[in-house]
Amino acid sequence: MRMESSSSRKWPSHGGQPEEMKRLFKLSEDRALLDFSANLNPLGPPQWLRDALKQSYEALTHYPDPTYSESKRAIACSEGVKPKQILVTNGGAEAIFLAAKRFERQKALIVQPTFVEYEQACRHYHIDIEDVFLDPLNEFQFPIDQVCSKMNKFQVIFICRPNNPTGTLIDEEGLRKILDQGLETGTSVVVDEAFVDFLPQTMTSLSHWIETYPNLILLRSLTKIFTIPGLRVGYMLAQSQVIEELERNQIPWSVNAVATTIIPRLLENDQFLARTREWLQVQLQELKFSLRELDFYMSPTNVNYYLLKDQQKPLHTEKLFTFFMEQGILARHTHNFKSLDGHYLRLAVRSEAENKELLHVLRKWREEV
Amino acid sequence: MRMESSSSRKWPSHGGQPEEMKRLFKLSEDRALLDFSANLNPLGPPQWLRDALKQSYEALTHYPDPTYSESKRAIACSEGVKPKQILVTNGGAEAIFLAAKRFERQKALIVQPTFVEYEQACRHYHIDIEDVFLDPLNEFQFPIDQVCSKMNKFQVIFICRPNNPTGTLIDEEGLRKILDQGLETGTSVVVDEAFVDFLPQTMTSLSHWIETYPNLILLRSLTKIFTIPGLRVGYMLAQSQVIEELERNQIPWSVNAVATTIIPRLLENDQFLARTREWLQVQLQELKFSLRELDFYMSPTNVNYYLLKDQQKPLHTEKLFTFFMEQGILARHTHNFKSLDGHYLRLAVRSEAENKELLHVLRKWREEV
Repeated sequence: MRMESSSSRKWPSHGGQPEEMKRLFKLSEDRALLDFSANLNPLGPPQWLRDALKQSYEALTHYPDPTYSESKRAIACSEGVKPKQILVTNGGAEAIFLAAKRFERQKALIVQPTFVEYEQACRHYHIDIEDVFLDPLNEFQFPIDQVCSKMNKFQVIFICRPNNPTGTLIDEEGLRKILDQGLETGTSVVVDEAFVDFLPQTMTSLSHWIETYPNLILLRSLTKIFTIPGLRVGYMLAQSQVIEELERNQIPWSVNAVATTIIPRLLENDQFLARTREWLQVQLQELKFSLRELDFYMSPTNVNYYLLKDQQKPLHTEKLFTFFMEQGILARHTHNFKSLDGHYLRLAVRSEAENKELLHVLRKWREEV
Repeated sequence: MRMESSSSRKWPSHGGQPEEMKRLFKLSEDRALLDFSANLNPLGPPQWLRDALKQSYEALTHYPDPTYSESKRAIACSEGVKPKQILVTNGGAEAIFLAAKRFERQKALIVQPTFVEYEQACRHYHIDIEDVFLDPLNEFQFPIDQVCSKMNKFQVIFICRPNNPTGTLIDEEGLRKILDQGLETGTSVVVDEAFVDFLPQTMTSLSHWIETYPNLILLRSLTKIFTIPGLRVGYMLAQSQVIEELERNQIPWSVNAVATTIIPRLLENDQFLARTREWLQVQLQELKFSLRELDFYMSPTNVNYYLLKDQQKPLHTEKLFTFFMEQGILARHTHNFKSLDGHYLRLAVRSEAENKELLHVLRKWREEV
């Protein structure tokens, strides 16, 4: 099969768009594609969600409670914080924009490569941006000293923990150093924990840090772990005075009533999280072993996605992407992740059978190409 | 029953909050309240919505189509415009904020009393606001000449048509005059048609005007007419270049997947709209007759809500509000509508039985108080 030649302009700006990719690559509409491009939990959504959705019908006929009090109580209970330290948002995306609004027309430091939404939100509110970079030559290590040395120039730093698309994690000691220094330089730190629930039980959310750090704003999302990106469920955690100020800028009723009905149910459901973590650790071990064996680079991820590069053919990433497509696998390109420039692919960790299929395709690539 | 004395500070900022009002007025939680405060269609939601919601389950597990193409096709078909002249939004509220973003740091004229969200959105984007007022001494007539005489000072005018909370309507000729003059002065006109579907069939949306007027931005909502405020469904209509620019500022995935699944179904459903209009015209005639008979002022509404004042006791509006609460009826106060300052109540038109109950309570007020 002959596919179109590529250019960085044609790539869709995010994963999870198999239909668009089929059109771009002129594949037939009914062609099955295993979607490794969206980093959602393949175990979800939880079984009970279908019934819960039926029950949410009544909620649709009323305006959402503008204070989202029931959702806040459930989140408070699950996170060990107070309801007034919580703002419920229309997905993680609205949380990012609300955080940015707080620093309108000021200066932000963004640790790249990461979610493009931080930059998008900063531009929306006329925030000057400077980037620092994870070190690709050193396992995407977090540039703690570089951040600390520049910090006095910035009112806010955006950090994704664990980071998308590398799956790597700033260590707690380093983050503490940044937060402590931020207290002195008047710098807030927005830590996006959208994927934190995928971490092993020993590495947890920093929700209990908000008591100590008035300059910490945590962003959370229930979208990825519960496989419900269509529902739009996120929240922010910070000290109550910060939350109050963030809330004042929120568009009225931005969170839909199906979401607010289901949030309390989602957070009751500990077993689902435990089962997810267990599945992930097993699959990660297996992938690490097999990818090393096949001589592919895999970023030192802690979560349900990772960067991949063929160490034997590091300049053939686009060819690999196309080969994947031909074999029915959709990967996430990295053309719009700063500093990656398409040189890696991001792949989701999926079910055992699907990961095996991926490895099978990679073996084929190794043998045939 | 002794109720708390009132002050303008304690009033919730919008209708549809019976639980909060019970707390404020120290009424027992299980006290039944007829909610005349939210101006939603009492005939809705349509019967089929419950099943449609079940079917939307699959949609939740995927990111919403970021281009909302299916919804746009349905809206285009229903409105007689092109898909690229449409932006789907997270309820009418997001549409208002996106419209405001376009005029960041410029000057806006708002025709008051009206939705508070226009002012809120303008403040969010640092827009200077000036107000002009409907004339309360003259049936809330629209100040067309006043608007035209000031227009060259403003980049945008916000007009609600039909207006909330008066139910009145700027006439087409007047609006055309404003739009024509706007072409000369470089002034855009944001016309919020959130309630337009309640109008009699002879008065329609201005959707076909967008071809003529590059300075017209129409805001629509499916929330009120279909009684689904919890779902968050709105859209904007304008010339394609304007829509493109508005879209660039939209938060990614701000419209949830249940909404996008259901929009096409909602717009197929002509019968429901026809039945709604029929019900409303009958009830409005009945209310107009009875309220006049009881010597209450009713604003010359065209839609499913109106302003009420006791012409015999015009200074006793708060007392009337409290009397309503005691009798199990929740009205919408007007403390946060500029120039009304609580001197009127806004009431929804509800089912025949509920409107009769309302009239019964008003007769009681007339006799007893």
